Amino acid sequence: MAFSSFHPPQRTLMGPGPSDVNPRILEAMSRPTIGHLDPVFVGMMDETKVMLQKAFMTKNELTMPVSAPGSAGMETCFVNMVEPGDTVIVCSNGVFGGRMKENVTRCGATAIMVEDDWGKPVDPQKLEDALKTNPNASTVAFVHAETSTGAVSDAKTLVEIAHKYDCLTIVDAVTSLAGSPLKVDEWNIDAIYSGTQKCLSCTPGISPVSFSKAATTRIQNRKTPVQSWFMDLNLVMAYWGAGTQRAYHHTAPINSLYAFHESLVVLHEEGLENSWARHAKNHDGLKAGFEAMGLGFFVDEASRLPQLNAVNIPEGVDEAALRSTLLNSYNLEIGAGLGPMAGKIWRIGLMGHASSETNVLFCLGAMDAVLSDMGAKIDSGKAVSAAMKVFA
Amino acid sequence: MAFSSFHPPQRTLMGPGPSDVNPRILEAMSRPTIGHLDPVFVGMMDETKVMLQKAFMTKNELTMPVSAPGSAGMETCFVNMVEPGDTVIVCSNGVFGGRMKENVTRCGATAIMVEDDWGKPVDPQKLEDALKTNPNASTVAFVHAETSTGAVSDAKTLVEIAHKYDCLTIVDAVTSLAGSPLKVDEWNIDAIYSGTQKCLSCTPGISPVSFSKAATTRIQNRKTPVQSWFMDLNLVMAYWGAGTQRAYHHTAPINSLYAFHESLVVLHEEGLENSWARHAKNHDGLKAGFEAMGLGFFVDEASRLPQLNAVNIPEGVDEAALRSTLLNSYNLEIGAGLGPMAGKIWRIGLMGHASSETNVLFCLGAMDAVLSDMGAKIDSGKAVSAAMKVFA
Repeated sequence: MAFSSFHPPQRTLMGPGPSDVNPRILEAMSRPTIGHLDPVFVGMMDETKVMLQKAFMTKNELTMPVSAPGSAGMETCFVNMVEPGDTVIVCSNGVFGGRMKENVTRCGATAIMVEDDWGKPVDPQKLEDALKTNPNASTVAFVHAETSTGAVSDAKTLVEIAHKYDCLTIVDAVTSLAGSPLKVDEWNIDAIYSGTQKCLSCTPGISPVSFSKAATTRIQNRKTPVQSWFMDLNLVMAYWGAGTQRAYHHTAPINSLYAFHESLVVLHEEGLENSWARHAKNHDGLKAGFEAMGLGFFVDEASRLPQLNAVNIPEGVDEAALRSTLLNSYNLEIGAGLGPMAGKIWRIGLMGHASSETNVLFCLGAMDAVLSDMGAKIDSGKAVSAAMKVFA
Repeated sequence: MAFSSFHPPQRTLMGPGPSDVNPRILEAMSRPTIGHLDPVFVGMMDETKVMLQKAFMTKNELTMPVSAPGSAGMETCFVNMVEPGDTVIVCSNGVFGGRMKENVTRCGATAIMVEDDWGKPVDPQKLEDALKTNPNASTVAFVHAETSTGAVSDAKTLVEIAHKYDCLTIVDAVTSLAGSPLKVDEWNIDAIYSGTQKCLSCTPGISPVSFSKAATTRIQNRKTPVQSWFMDLNLVMAYWGAGTQRAYHHTAPINSLYAFHESLVVLHEEGLENSWARHAKNHDGLKAGFEAMGLGFFVDEASRLPQLNAVNIPEGVDEAALRSTLLNSYNLEIGAGLGPMAGKIWRIGLMGHASSETNVLFCLGAMDAVLSDMGAKIDSGKAVSAAMKVFA
């Protein structure tokens, strides 16, 4: 049996992530590996931390990349912040709120669910009601930007309410970081995790996290050990903490961290607010195109993320066939709906490097062509020019 | 504050890992990112699994890379195989046996320690004694190749004894995989984890694991849920399992998996047994050189790993200064001793791509020169030619 090197096709990645990776970041990833305790590497870690603080808009000392994908970043927040017997209010309006619940119960804690419809933002009133009836709650967890629907919630208000009831907060910012406003210090978020493969347009596999002083104090004063050795921040801090003496914890994913560093350099060069503005503008172009085609958005405009667009599937269209054609004929990946949204929406990402006018125009043109060929009832031939008017 | 791209120096990595990465593998890592549910990517996953089975010498269906470093591979084995209240016999003869104990207790189980001196292999008699006095034990865990000392234990015998007492086994093969004989099926190992950054000479960040039928059955029939959502194999299996329908669990580290795939292609091209022979031969060269220099090895020859050489530090030598000089003047990284071995040994890796005649000769020449300059009592000027005689 012969095995040979794998050469992937060149796709355009406009699903819910991974998004297109900037070639600069791919190149950075292939630089020579050095040791994880090499002083030169440690210097790079320090710079990474500073750039990540800026991306999160925080001065939090405990700000670093977890050496595993976003799901592990989520778990890092929960296993460190939550102890057995705790009560955690989990606001759920999509897949990732449900996953938070899983994390809470696996920590031996009780999850009180605050449910909102998929596609709607978390309702602050419902959170406050839950806090009133659960005075023993210690933590509130919610998703800032739901990757399963593209709905954004009002993180600032939710954190304010949580703090009013003496709860610390855990916030999922996997899809929001670098793509739309996220202000960790201004909003007083306590624990936050994100991913690299969304609006940072880095390769997947790393999860940036940040913890406020209050969160750090809670972690340092736990009554029980963190159930995960790999994710125990009391141990990880010794490697990522300040000072020249770095204690060995685990072997860092060196080359993935080169890529992560480069993605932050790219972000810093563009400027965080310019990145938000670019994401917003490209969303406007995409929206104009889909509206010209006669397709609607699943999420109300007020709570719609520019970087993740849930588009309603027109009646009678074989949505999987459309995605297959886009992938096989156009090398274009868009996302399906997850769970109850399967067959109802497509998820079209405009994240990071993939958030470009070129991609908007290419995607609109391709979808218009394929939908027309499939006999879908759309207003064909107008989408691309409608988008161009936004960009002009 | 200006940030710029990070350009690492070109080091020769002869520490305990990461080892030098084959440039082919670095190049593979920089190929265009595609989606984790892309059929082309799924095809690569299937091929990766088959190649990994060959590397582990197993037909185990549940064989796959965990999306995080070796420490997470270790934890994946423990959190899936062990339940609260279980008794686990942990054989410890170095750092990583101690870490196994940490994993056991964090699973809510009891660890019964079988201690051997650092640098010695695990004593099968001591294991059998512990099993006799702990008839309720369900699992035996041990390190096949101790990265902290370079000692190899007799995995086949240890597994046989464990099975005699109806225990399943968890084996740390982080440093052994691809560098020296490791035969998962022939030795009847139940759960095994390894790393990519040792003898596979891949970048760090992935942990290959494999589970026997007995282990898989135990995991499927657990009485309690796995405490980690990220590492729950019942969930991960749905993504890496057989069949065309792959369930989304977490976003796979796509480019790191390209690198891992390429590392397995490289191994397959060389042949597993040829790789073992190469590691053995380069060890012989290094040994001849150090012996000519008058330096001894910490581990007895019978249980010495060829890929990780613990060399005794000559009296009076400032070992940290030597490592600094090697790093700064020669761009050569060797490893320090960990824990109680700090200041007593250097750890010199000859792993994967770094296991080459060139590296052996370079390392011997550099160490001879620096030690002489430092006034160490060594027999200078003979090491390189002694090694060349082995290679001739």
